[in-house]
Amino acid sequence: MAKVEPRTLSGFMELLPAPQVKMEKMMETLRRCYSVYGFTPLDTPVIESSEVLLAKGGGETEKQIYRFNKGDSDIALRFDLTVPLAKYVAQNYGQLVFPFRRYQIGKVYRGERAQRGRFREFYQADIDIIGDGKLDIINEAEIPAIIYRSFSELGLKRFRIKVNNRKILNGFFSLAGMTDKATEIMHTIDKMDKIGANKVRQILMDEIHMFSHKADDIMDFMAINGSVAEVLEALERYKGMDETFDMGLEELKTVTKYLADFGVPEENFAIDLSIARGLDYYTGTVYETEMLDHPEIGSVCSGGRYDNLAEYYTDKQLPGVGISIGLTRLFYVLNEQGMLSDEIVSAPADALVIPMGEELGYAIAAATAMRDAGVRTQLYCEKKKFKAKMSYADKLQIPYCVLIGEDEMAAGVVAVKNMASGEQQLLTPAEAAKLIKEDMDCRNKIAVIKEI
Amino acid sequence: MAKVEPRTLSGFMELLPAPQVKMEKMMETLRRCYSVYGFTPLDTPVIESSEVLLAKGGGETEKQIYRFNKGDSDIALRFDLTVPLAKYVAQNYGQLVFPFRRYQIGKVYRGERAQRGRFREFYQADIDIIGDGKLDIINEAEIPAIIYRSFSELGLKRFRIKVNNRKILNGFFSLAGMTDKATEIMHTIDKMDKIGANKVRQILMDEIHMFSHKADDIMDFMAINGSVAEVLEALERYKGMDETFDMGLEELKTVTKYLADFGVPEENFAIDLSIARGLDYYTGTVYETEMLDHPEIGSVCSGGRYDNLAEYYTDKQLPGVGISIGLTRLFYVLNEQGMLSDEIVSAPADALVIPMGEELGYAIAAATAMRDAGVRTQLYCEKKKFKAKMSYADKLQIPYCVLIGEDEMAAGVVAVKNMASGEQQLLTPAEAAKLIKEDMDCRNKIAVIKEI
Repeated sequence: MAKVEPRTLSGFMELLPAPQVKMEKMMETLRRCYSVYGFTPLDTPVIESSEVLLAKGGGETEKQIYRFNKGDSDIALRFDLTVPLAKYVAQNYGQLVFPFRRYQIGKVYRGERAQRGRFREFYQADIDIIGDGKLDIINEAEIPAIIYRSFSELGLKRFRIKVNNRKILNGFFSLAGMTDKATEIMHTIDKMDKIGANKVRQILMDEIHMFSHKADDIMDFMAINGSVAEVLEALERYKGMDETFDMGLEELKTVTKYLADFGVPEENFAIDLSIARGLDYYTGTVYETEMLDHPEIGSVCSGGRYDNLAEYYTDKQLPGVGISIGLTRLFYVLNEQGMLSDEIVSAPADALVIPMGEELGYAIAAATAMRDAGVRTQLYCEKKKFKAKMSYADKLQIPYCVLIGEDEMAAGVVAVKNMASGEQQLLTPAEAAKLIKEDMDCRNKIAVIKEI
Repeated sequence: MAKVEPRTLSGFMELLPAPQVKMEKMMETLRRCYSVYGFTPLDTPVIESSEVLLAKGGGETEKQIYRFNKGDSDIALRFDLTVPLAKYVAQNYGQLVFPFRRYQIGKVYRGERAQRGRFREFYQADIDIIGDGKLDIINEAEIPAIIYRSFSELGLKRFRIKVNNRKILNGFFSLAGMTDKATEIMHTIDKMDKIGANKVRQILMDEIHMFSHKADDIMDFMAINGSVAEVLEALERYKGMDETFDMGLEELKTVTKYLADFGVPEENFAIDLSIARGLDYYTGTVYETEMLDHPEIGSVCSGGRYDNLAEYYTDKQLPGVGISIGLTRLFYVLNEQGMLSDEIVSAPADALVIPMGEELGYAIAAATAMRDAGVRTQLYCEKKKFKAKMSYADKLQIPYCVLIGEDEMAAGVVAVKNMASGEQQLLTPAEAAKLIKEDMDCRNKIAVIKEI
């Protein structure tokens, strides 16, 4: 029979079993962290009506989208989780309780040019808090705590959550009489990390046609840095001249005031006035998260406050704050950098039960007892030589082999072999289960990311 | 601004938060059960090349598939998880260790005619065990144990795993000289549950043109029932006349021999000779699972043994055995029948921390301590009246409110209110966390399905 070549489309991540376990562990960690802050899980369709998905319209998005017809329907695959959320909240407004806190970890689709490290199908892991009409600033202050816990539990230590406030930027531009150019300027500033301060200054003068002293004002402002206290003090100098600026500064003070109570250490946090976020709909606090040893990767968790989530679907004013982790890309980068821990158990089973003879009843009962105790147990009964059976456990890095021969059956025990140490001991099935479960519970606490 | 009507496409399930939590719980339960049998999680793309996905071809599938072009690529959305598995195993053959045991819970797409309870996007929860060249019969014997544990942990008691063996059927047809009509006959028999024995007999005579005594032979054979021992005994009568039949009977004996050791009670298991499974590629044991009080739903978990998983992609002989749960449909049916438990905690948080005054530091620190202890905690700081805050907790059915006023702060405690009992007590944040965590750990053991 003629064969079709089995292949996966370019730009689609498909992992081998061991790395997939690490990816699952990352998702599980995020689910747990998001849950602990009182977010409810949501799952929306991958396919939506094109009219709904593209209500906002916009250039780049529309070019990249997977859009097609099925029967009479013009449909498309979601390109983020925010638009489906907006639809969901508008559609179910009467049945939701606000503030509505949801997380969603799901695949989204963008037909980008295929290149190394760029994906057309990728997971986003989002949280959002949506208010009905109003949403208290404390929600913006809580976000860094969620980012901090999430990355800490993933195993990362050397990262920094960088925060800014769009009102501070807008206010400053207004002060400087550059409101009409604010969007352009912000887009330019957003490139600071990538192209450097000099090039930004050059663009401000050449392309946005600013006088050099105005460009200098902006560059001076953007150069403000230091500890949270130092930056806030420097910003005080601009106070009292613009209402929006003052409001932004107050918000920033509130966001930073409770950091310690929220459990975020100072070294994992900074105010960075150069952060504007490319997206136009942020109106208050904005967030980026940088891996200190890999700034070249860019932000691994970003988001911010917006005033109107669902304006394309409803007249209701729905302000919110949210962040998103590009999980597939983060996983790819961590893997490339060798930062995924090899200490976590990525075997499909904790124990491989190997009966030595023909009679299987005892081995099956032992495996069943171990499973009842929560040990991930595989029963291996293929007709192979003993060496091949052990080699199977070796190749899959299964931590324990449980050997059952005539002697063990007669004595009502099993021989438990620790595959790492080579140590072997005779135990009852219940004792074996306890030993293995305790070791696994311990090893399952190992974080998925390992800093080098 | 003109609004787009927010809507979800017909045939796509999108749940409100509380039912979504139940769906998540079902998936979590299945992940745990599958893991405990040593299956590794896999995640393959939703989109595949049409050539790969449709390698087998075939009528119904091709009509229902979501297929479209993006750039030069002819691509399609997966319509099951088996074809992507076949591709995956063929593609990664050299890097996998066999027997290869994987589970996958993922969305698949079929553009079926929209009707109540039929979904175009739905979850399948699959497991498969793939051998390289050979696969021991014990794997087929293990499957009922996995089905049993999965449904038991979901909370179902009144269900029956029905098993048959295609070799027994094929052998019997060969004996009766009806091999050339075996496929047709099996497809007809497959409808037994739906249309009844009389109608099946009629079709056998009228449409498959069998003599009445041959049809009677078949109907007699199919009428064999009773306990496992009784059915096996009845089948002994046909033994020694056809090699395939004898092989099938031996397999069936092995599959049933170890049931008790595998932990499957007799009352949850039966041999049912009328089960053939519509799909043509099963070659040995086949499985269906029936909810005893809802036979009208049909099988909620089906599968079987096949000889060649990936013949369209590779020359390697890859026999396997697998089962699939149509999770979205199962959830829909359970919900319709009122069989989803209302006792499980479907609130987004275990505790709502409500600070009474302006100073938030103490409340934030208390919430942080509770989160550190694993309590799903929401901090509620919206500027609302006390009554509105309690009503928020009520509406979301959050089990505990943690109230913090001046007195509590002065005393270093919090007031913990059990929302169900109304009982209120003063505890340190650590004590509060412990109390709530223990209660939640207990309540989280409640199964998602409740039989009425």
